Amino acid sequence: MTDQPAAALETALAYHRAWTKGDFATAMTYVADDIVCLAPSGRLEGAEAFGAFMGPFAQIVTGSELLAAYGDQTTAVLVYDTETIPVSRAPGAECLSVVDGQITHLRIIFDRTPFEAARRERASRGPDDQ
Amino acid sequence: MTDQPAAALETALAYHRAWTKGDFATAMTYVADDIVCLAPSGRLEGAEAFGAFMGPFAQIVTGSELLAAYGDQTTAVLVYDTETIPVSRAPGAECLSVVDGQITHLRIIFDRTPFEAARRERASRGPDDQ
Repeated sequence: MTDQPAAALETALAYHRAWTKGDFATAMTYVADDIVCLAPSGRLEGAEAFGAFMGPFAQIVTGSELLAAYGDQTTAVLVYDTETIPVSRAPGAECLSVVDGQITHLRIIFDRTPFEAARRERASRGPDDQ
Repeated sequence: MTDQPAAALETALAYHRAWTKGDFATAMTYVADDIVCLAPSGRLEGAEAFGAFMGPFAQIVTGSELLAAYGDQTTAVLVYDTETIPVSRAPGAECLSVVDGQITHLRIIFDRTPFEAARRERASRGPDDQ
């Protein structure tokens, strides 16, 4: 046990590196089948639901910067900034619980407001401009 | 130096305890005069601007739970959930830089969407119901 003082942090960072590089399939190898994710839009249960939420976001990320990463054997916290196609600066924070190298619980915090504003703007431009 | 391995975390926690208990004046004693705060609504410079942003939020908090707290001598990360008057569950994350016991940089991440929805609902009810 003592030789892995930050095992959760290592898993969280491996997951983070994978999805921010566009390798979402590798990122999902760190996600437990029965993950519970608390997202701004609500509670997601299971890897399939989680992937359906996080995968599309990973696809629109064009850049990212890890701002802070802390953790211990069971829990990790990551704070990062992302550049995305619809929103130029979209910071996020995650609090992750890890068991045996798998993320079992993930709370993700970010501001949905600019994404919603971008969506409305696209909709208002109409189909010819999309 | 080695006897204060988590000085930034201690300051961050003291600040957090104060404002979540409703003692915003004490919370502000941990805030540097030249603090830079990156909030979802934009960049705030100086303790006065920061207080004008954070003080009103502290006033509507009716409950809080610290979910994770990590840090070292210069940086700390807090993840928490709050209950507020307009929004029942409003989680937030903060990444704080601390110099000599004063918070010099604070990035705060939360979802503005439910607060905006609550504001619109109050507005739609009209003055008689407010």
